[in-house]
Amino acid sequence: MNDFVPRDTEYEARVRASFARQRVMATIGAALARVVPGEVEIELLFREDLTQQHGYLHAGVVAAVVDSACGYAALTLAPAGAEVVSVEFKLNLLAPAVGERFVARARVKRAGRSITVCAGDLFAAAGGAEKAVATMLATMMTVAA
Amino acid sequence: MNDFVPRDTEYEARVRASFARQRVMATIGAALARVVPGEVEIELLFREDLTQQHGYLHAGVVAAVVDSACGYAALTLAPAGAEVVSVEFKLNLLAPAVGERFVARARVKRAGRSITVCAGDLFAAAGGAEKAVATMLATMMTVAA
Amino acid sequence: MNDFVPRDTEYEARVRASFARQRVMATIGAALARVVPGEVEIELLFREDLTQQHGYLHAGVVAAVVDSACGYAALTLAPAGAEVVSVEFKLNLLAPAVGERFVARARVKRAGRSITVCAGDLFAAAGGAEKAVATMLATMMTVAA
Amino acid sequence: MNDFVPRDTEYEARVRASFARQRVMATIGAALARVVPGEVEIELLFREDLTQQHGYLHAGVVAAVVDSACGYAALTLAPAGAEVVSVEFKLNLLAPAVGERFVARARVKRAGRSITVCAGDLFAAAGGAEKAVATMLATMMTVAA
Repeated sequence: MNDFVPRDTEYEARVRASFARQRVMATIGAALARVVPGEVEIELLFREDLTQQHGYLHAGVVAAVVDSACGYAALTLAPAGAEVVSVEFKLNLLAPAVGERFVARARVKRAGRSITVCAGDLFAAAGGAEKAVATMLATMMTVAA
Repeated sequence: MNDFVPRDTEYEARVRASFARQRVMATIGAALARVVPGEVEIELLFREDLTQQHGYLHAGVVAAVVDSACGYAALTLAPAGAEVVSVEFKLNLLAPAVGERFVARARVKRAGRSITVCAGDLFAAAGGAEKAVATMLATMMTVAA
Repeated sequence: MNDFVPRDTEYEARVRASFARQRVMATIGAALARVVPGEVEIELLFREDLTQQHGYLHAGVVAAVVDSACGYAALTLAPAGAEVVSVEFKLNLLAPAVGERFVARARVKRAGRSITVCAGDLFAAAGGAEKAVATMLATMMTVAA
Repeated sequence: MNDFVPRDTEYEARVRASFARQRVMATIGAALARVVPGEVEIELLFREDLTQQHGYLHAGVVAAVVDSACGYAALTLAPAGAEVVSVEFKLNLLAPAVGERFVARARVKRAGRSITVCAGDLFAAAGGAEKAVATMLATMMTVAA
């Protein structure tokens, strides 16, 4: 649990509706999992058609799910009717993105009126263990819809 | 033109062969265009199944093509038999990624023995005009295959 | 030359007045040089009391002058009365920051109403030659004063 | 506590000796505090001669102490005789760097043979409370001395 207090009690429905409109998430098979104030998780199953030349998930696919998780973590704290857009992000690849199942986990580090800074990680899950394969620091902007 | 001198005369064939193994590039419909020492271009056509909630290309798709362009720009200068992996990248979104056709254009800023730093941009092309929609600064590492 | 049109004809005086209030610039001996719409240069002389453990300029000192150059490049395009603050920056170190004289050169890549993205470089100057020692990609925000 | 096992039992002496050679740390009045495997803290007192135009610590000064903390966190895990250099870092400014005392706290996120990724934060300390004012994600490289 964390201390974040959502300004819109419908935050989860809003996040889930927006995620459903991100068509690329369906294209890559990503699913929205946990949505709580300031924190969002997205799950992704490994697929060979998402890989780079060594058979790992391509960094762009990693970026896609972690960026979306960061953006939706920010959206959980935005006022009703506002939207969140990505200003920029930085992604470090920590280990080859191999495995069967991945989870992107993002959390708000600082929520401002306009700028929200989020951190996110991608973990490869196998059995009960998780291994970090990438980490992101992202800047989001809240804008009127 | 630029001043880069490739250490492997087969640099273009090597880049094209590696790109062909990046299965995600076929999945999103990206094509390798220009390959010269220190510079690489990748083209991408707009597709609705690659979009985020506002109908723009998702930032992860943008990252995918610009990161690959950066990595292959680095690979043009690597010695024969070496490979290039992404250490990290930072992507700024400059404008909504809308349009019919996009080109990612990357160039080496500094090629070291181990670390190569690249800059890349994504442009939306319409008619004869181009508009920058994103810019990346990326760190690549050359490793023995 | 570039295509930027300043919204405040007093942009140079405003930049120079703000720079004069950045007390750390005097502390490290940095001087504001060129100020044109969308582009700013800051000069710095090497000093041993600004070095890291190998005798090069510390990355924080490099960041200081390139970040200020980026921020003031953004400020040249801001409306009268507005201020610019750094949201974030990413700095790649390209070569050891050694030499007698350095110049940080920043330019606006995209100026928006709220967010301005700038690129900056630090060059070590010796004789008539310059060598890039660092490169930055930075996000600035324009705010009412 | 954490799980990191140093490869050089003299890691703390090595970190402290290197920090003492970073002349800029004395120039800005920074002091090395906690040094444990994979984690380092640096303290800094507010000084007006380190400020930007609004009277806050300049982002370059913030970057200096957080980057050094990240580098030394990496160095705690490096083999004897090796050195650590900064490849790049990204810094987000979260809040004005105002206060009397600051602490930069860095930790290793992933230590590889060549590349080590670290995260660091700067906190403004007042009374018993701390407030995050900046956060960094940094890439360090271990090199033979």
